[in-house]
Amino acid sequence: MNASAQFQDRLNQVAKDTETLLDRLLGSALLDGEIGRPARLLEAMRYAGLGAGKRFRPFLVVECASLFGVDREQALMAGAALECIHCYSLVHDDLPAMDDDDLRRGQPTAHKAFDEATAILAGDGLLTLAFDIASRTATHPDPAVRVELVQALARASGLGGMVGGQMLDLAAEGRFDGGTARRLQEKEVLTLQAMKTGALLKFACRAGGILGQASAAQRDALERYGAAVGQAFQIADDLLDVEGDPALVGKQTGKDADAGKATIVGILGVDGAKARLRTIVSNAEVALAPFGKSADVLIAGAKFVADRNV
Amino acid sequence: MNASAQFQDRLNQVAKDTETLLDRLLGSALLDGEIGRPARLLEAMRYAGLGAGKRFRPFLVVECASLFGVDREQALMAGAALECIHCYSLVHDDLPAMDDDDLRRGQPTAHKAFDEATAILAGDGLLTLAFDIASRTATHPDPAVRVELVQALARASGLGGMVGGQMLDLAAEGRFDGGTARRLQEKEVLTLQAMKTGALLKFACRAGGILGQASAAQRDALERYGAAVGQAFQIADDLLDVEGDPALVGKQTGKDADAGKATIVGILGVDGAKARLRTIVSNAEVALAPFGKSADVLIAGAKFVADRNV
Repeated sequence: MNASAQFQDRLNQVAKDTETLLDRLLGSALLDGEIGRPARLLEAMRYAGLGAGKRFRPFLVVECASLFGVDREQALMAGAALECIHCYSLVHDDLPAMDDDDLRRGQPTAHKAFDEATAILAGDGLLTLAFDIASRTATHPDPAVRVELVQALARASGLGGMVGGQMLDLAAEGRFDGGTARRLQEKEVLTLQAMKTGALLKFACRAGGILGQASAAQRDALERYGAAVGQAFQIADDLLDVEGDPALVGKQTGKDADAGKATIVGILGVDGAKARLRTIVSNAEVALAPFGKSADVLIAGAKFVADRNV
Repeated sequence: MNASAQFQDRLNQVAKDTETLLDRLLGSALLDGEIGRPARLLEAMRYAGLGAGKRFRPFLVVECASLFGVDREQALMAGAALECIHCYSLVHDDLPAMDDDDLRRGQPTAHKAFDEATAILAGDGLLTLAFDIASRTATHPDPAVRVELVQALARASGLGGMVGGQMLDLAAEGRFDGGTARRLQEKEVLTLQAMKTGALLKFACRAGGILGQASAAQRDALERYGAAVGQAFQIADDLLDVEGDPALVGKQTGKDADAGKATIVGILGVDGAKARLRTIVSNAEVALAPFGKSADVLIAGAKFVADRNV
């Protein structure tokens, strides 16, 4: 099997295992310390957390962790925690007061399928559940490892990471202070993207190193790979918006340009962005070189992110 | 100084120290792992987290922890984490899609002072920050203690605790499934209240035992005290709604009855509720008896909660 086929195979397997795990974590059985699990709230959390998504973030956790021989079940737990954060962010981003989207992956968004109050609470519930999962013994037997994971996840997803990035995105759209959109400089675009989407992808790789109790040099390598994947993800997304086939992409293209949104493609042009993408993928390969052949599937993952047409 | 004056004194001191600590935690300096702290988001989080509230939950953490000689600075950190959860819940509960409140403690609610999108994100940011704070070395040097704190906080505040309780409250108001309010039975009211407000108060006491690495019997005593405080808090609140002076209470009274809301006062009557309140305070005293005189300020706290007229 070539690296690309192996990547698809491993991604599919992680997606399947993550689905099974989240299905269990979002069950109705009460855990120690819980008083009740209201049916409607649980149903909305399941709607938002199950049945969709490529589970690319859990894949990164599992594959980075496997470089250090981490138990796969533990890595899947950390991946499930991360996926709860990712899914809550989609629910809140889709709300009428935010991006006001009615559809997500072709299905009604949570506030459309339920209602706004339920969607807000389901997001809050998933966000909170992420830290519950990360703190469990099943995620790692060593409490020092678990608490490091909790802290890294909080930093990646809060004010200084993903939530902050969503704030910068709304600000760039001119949503505040009188409502004038402002074209960002390249550096500002990179910061916004590093926060909004990059932080969680980087955390996914970092989590592998935390679970594996990797050396500082190894963690540094994983973080450089994670940062490269985040940048590649974003440029590929921007390119899809310009060049993608709406039928394949499954959503309207040309939205960014219409919204006057500053993107790397807008700043560097299509050819410049593609050249940048090649450099980024090469950076990802260089970062993982010390891990040899065992990192091939991660490098195939970076290439997949860069080349994707959906 | 009598116990009641001592309680007021300690409560005020914890409030002051918590304010100072949260002011620092909500500063603009970046922490390791953070990329940026967008000014508007930070401002909204400060608006929601600073300058108001009695800080009764942090008081419970600090006083319960002090029974075991826990470093006050550590207990204040755990209290600050809990207060972030409490404050985020107020921001989200006030949103138009939820309780739709324009004022909170006489000030514009976060979505009025800023806007809905900013308020949603500020709530998400405070919720996430709580777990960042709980996971820091300054909260406790032992990672096993910190991760236990993280897990207990997640269980108290998520699907199986506070968020679930808010869901039950909205459901009881008839917000879903065609919109008919339903009068809850006593048992249902108690479950709703144990989740919506009780879980965090109970966690506050539990946190003291976790930080103090207390014995199972001691933790059990603290939890029984915490549960009693939660119940007293709620009945006192219900009584204020029926008997309170709107000028003193600072909000409209009689709202629960008008809304057809089932409360313990509605079920037991005013005299029955007052008798129940006395039993609950007595339970709180009995629970803390093993701690002797050092628990006097906590017992005064339970009495304050039961007798409060504001």
